Amino acid sequence: MISVGSSIPPAPESLWVERDNNTVSLPSSGKYIIVGVPGAFTPPCSSQVPGYIENYDKLKEKGISAAYVVAVNDIFVVNAWKEKLANDSGVQFLSDSRGMIITQISSNNRYSILIPHIRGAGEFTNSVGLGFDASGLLGNTRSKRYVAIVEDGKVVNLQVEDEAPNITVTHVDKVLGSL
Amino acid sequence: MISVGSSIPPAPESLWVERDNNTVSLPSSGKYIIVGVPGAFTPPCSSQVPGYIENYDKLKEKGISAAYVVAVNDIFVVNAWKEKLANDSGVQFLSDSRGMIITQISSNNRYSILIPHIRGAGEFTNSVGLGFDASGLLGNTRSKRYVAIVEDGKVVNLQVEDEAPNITVTHVDKVLGSL
Repeated sequence: MISVGSSIPPAPESLWVERDNNTVSLPSSGKYIIVGVPGAFTPPCSSQVPGYIENYDKLKEKGISAAYVVAVNDIFVVNAWKEKLANDSGVQFLSDSRGMIITQISSNNRYSILIPHIRGAGEFTNSVGLGFDASGLLGNTRSKRYVAIVEDGKVVNLQVEDEAPNITVTHVDKVLGSL
Repeated sequence: MISVGSSIPPAPESLWVERDNNTVSLPSSGKYIIVGVPGAFTPPCSSQVPGYIENYDKLKEKGISAAYVVAVNDIFVVNAWKEKLANDSGVQFLSDSRGMIITQISSNNRYSILIPHIRGAGEFTNSVGLGFDASGLLGNTRSKRYVAIVEDGKVVNLQVEDEAPNITVTHVDKVLGSL
């Protein structure tokens, strides 16, 4: 998992905004915030995210230049969720659904074996080590609920909920208090 | 893939309606229709499905007792989509998202090897052979676009689009014409 000091790439290939394959550009300087959420339209996420929308101006007053909600949901679902919650907000909603199923060949001196390998949905979320297996309820890998504050491309604060439905350390009031 | 004559189980464990783990009961007698769709909130599906909602009475006049839209989307997304399209329609919207990641052990006389095995999202859809890998755009396995007419628990007509975005043989007018 990423931690304080980790770099966040400026344009992760799987983070799409507004339409498929439209990669977002994350700021390489200044301070921004990523709010990772387990599921568009789920009750906890639909309760947590409006706090960031309502307090977007306060976040900006405290030096945050941009706020991104990141969900391992496809771009069509993410757009519909944004439309419902916050169509005219400065908070951006990013889809991190793209996934790939890769088949690897494992071999030693005597045998070659085809191994179906899961990279799974959520390339960005998995690349920062914040995915979890939500397949029993939601069907695939999803994002843990976390908030990362990123400054000049590096993580300066990371808060991850112990359980995905919880909203404690990732509540907007907690984040505002830490800025 | 299922074909004419195949049995459809009356209560697939992964087909949920209204809330998670609330298994739907499919009619074991009479005639009903399943409309499998690739993605809630995607433009083709949001264009196709209203036809079934608007023509639900005509379907009933032609002997259809129930109509189910089945999507490999989680129950929260499916409910939000239904709310947007057809909150008071008789057409039922089912979530088939549940998936599982199973790790198998493969062994012969000399070696044991752990093989991560994908069953993937959409247990029902995969069990009837109508899933496809949509991970590049939508993140996981989804349902092909198909219409199955089921009578007394057995498929009596099955129409599957060659390409998921197409709406030709699965258009409600085509289905009405075949009844």
